[in-house]
Amino acid sequence: MRIAVDAMGGDNAPKAIVEGVMLAKKELPSIEFQLFGKEEEIKQYVTDMENVTIIHTDVKIESDDEPVKAVRRKKDASMMLAAKAVKDGEADAVFSAGNTGALLAAGLLVVGRIPQIERPGLMTTLPTFGKNNQGFDFMDLGANAENKPEHLVEYAVMGTHYAKQVRGITNPRVGLLNNGEEETKGNELTKSTYQLLKNEPSINFIGNVEARELLSGVADVVVTDGFTGNAVLKTIEGTALGIMSILKESILDSGIKGKMGAVLLKDALKNVKGSLDYSAYGGAVLFGLKAPVVKTHGSTGPEAVAYTIKQIHTMLETNVTDGLVSYYAHKDETSK
Amino acid sequence: MRIAVDAMGGDNAPKAIVEGVMLAKKELPSIEFQLFGKEEEIKQYVTDMENVTIIHTDVKIESDDEPVKAVRRKKDASMMLAAKAVKDGEADAVFSAGNTGALLAAGLLVVGRIPQIERPGLMTTLPTFGKNNQGFDFMDLGANAENKPEHLVEYAVMGTHYAKQVRGITNPRVGLLNNGEEETKGNELTKSTYQLLKNEPSINFIGNVEARELLSGVADVVVTDGFTGNAVLKTIEGTALGIMSILKESILDSGIKGKMGAVLLKDALKNVKGSLDYSAYGGAVLFGLKAPVVKTHGSTGPEAVAYTIKQIHTMLETNVTDGLVSYYAHKDETSK
Repeated sequence: MRIAVDAMGGDNAPKAIVEGVMLAKKELPSIEFQLFGKEEEIKQYVTDMENVTIIHTDVKIESDDEPVKAVRRKKDASMMLAAKAVKDGEADAVFSAGNTGALLAAGLLVVGRIPQIERPGLMTTLPTFGKNNQGFDFMDLGANAENKPEHLVEYAVMGTHYAKQVRGITNPRVGLLNNGEEETKGNELTKSTYQLLKNEPSINFIGNVEARELLSGVADVVVTDGFTGNAVLKTIEGTALGIMSILKESILDSGIKGKMGAVLLKDALKNVKGSLDYSAYGGAVLFGLKAPVVKTHGSTGPEAVAYTIKQIHTMLETNVTDGLVSYYAHKDETSK
Repeated sequence: MRIAVDAMGGDNAPKAIVEGVMLAKKELPSIEFQLFGKEEEIKQYVTDMENVTIIHTDVKIESDDEPVKAVRRKKDASMMLAAKAVKDGEADAVFSAGNTGALLAAGLLVVGRIPQIERPGLMTTLPTFGKNNQGFDFMDLGANAENKPEHLVEYAVMGTHYAKQVRGITNPRVGLLNNGEEETKGNELTKSTYQLLKNEPSINFIGNVEARELLSGVADVVVTDGFTGNAVLKTIEGTALGIMSILKESILDSGIKGKMGAVLLKDALKNVKGSLDYSAYGGAVLFGLKAPVVKTHGSTGPEAVAYTIKQIHTMLETNVTDGLVSYYAHKDETSK
């Protein structure tokens, strides 16, 4: 199992990336890592060279580079070389914490789509609260600004494969994000998508789900168009950050009594923060490509990098991409 | 100033509604209230009959009635009679906590649009955290499932009028909800809308805003299509509720130490809850009609009803609807 790592992507690269790889290596010593980037800088953080190769390049894609231009002009960037390693059969998956748009472009142009999947999408597992806190797979998070109903069916099929194989959920419940539960609710896109999902035999479609219910675990897989998915994901993040910050402010403003309370409540508050942290589920998968291409937050630390490496390891071990490829190949066969 | 009140709408009607009216009356004794609904039930909660008229009807629209059907068939429902009172010039505004879809339909069909406004939208003021915590006006929250760019310009103009006149904000900053800050980001709708907003002289357009920044007060007015607006509003609600409930659970699970901490932190936690409660801003306005039609949550209590009455009072006092009507009339004049 060989993972191509863009060691230069993200705000804390290469330090956080290489330290994360070293953390992951302890648990998963059999993975071969190919680290792409500035050799001298990367070397400083490599504490164990076994199964590690450094492929030097001085070029990197910056977080504010225009994605398509960057992909065309910076062919020797660490991210591009990592994607090329997968294309050339030298690696099995790509990891990056760099420019999301550029990684999407590199994934589509270099790694390539599974032929029958028209629109790969960005998927992540988000946390759910309460009794059923196994999280849910949410896509598209913004790989596409416009989607057709057929794309959302692709997401439902991909999300089902992921939930089953990578997260071990039997018969995952698939929901369509909509502005009401009834079949007749929604815009043109969701109304048409509802009919297609209802008639898709390979998934367990439970109907429309509303945004208010997402975090309570109403479904295991939730599909939506990339524009809405992006807005919902960022709203969850913004609301959670906002609440945690006013909670902190209120505690600081509440005098000695409040501060004592906060000390006593430390574990409970930590617990809340932990419930909100979805980095333990790994990064965002650009799903529908010939190999796993996985992205984690640019501001990520070593632990989140290690979680994402583990996620990629599970994706490779369970052959989720091959599963999708043969599902679509078989579908083509039977429809002939 | 005469407000037509649908006394039968909402889960706690008529009790919560009439009690809320009584609360509002104490501060605003000059408002004339017309309470539509079952006279015997309403009477129980009226503690002061001055400036209060009860218009009896046995019919009411239920929360699960199909909106358009209900509006067509239940012409004598309390909500419909309240809307008709405005149409007939007997009242100046409508208040309801009932079926949202039916109120939208009643507003459009009975009260009627301002002629130049093609698509009235649902608008509410949401809270913002931090230094600039004056909230922001957000629309469309779901009156329309599909929107054209021109509709979003209407929302920007209406939101600006509301923020200026009702909330007293000088030169309100208008943002377009989008999946990136750059002018070129987004889907077809947001890209076209951006160009129209940039060229609309009557507003202070500050560009795209992302969902992550909404609650931090990045703009005073934020416009989006009804599908996205609905998803974002419900995501904020769901995330806030989810976090407050895991916080509560964590405190309950954290033993005597944690419970003591919670007692000490009581004021801080109350403060957080207060920051999240946007009922103080009033209800959701169906904006673009010939008179204020304002909706509050079905599960609302008397305080929130009173807040919404005060909001309607301010809308009437500042003539925000007339302001819109003359803005569009003047625009028609100058474009001739």
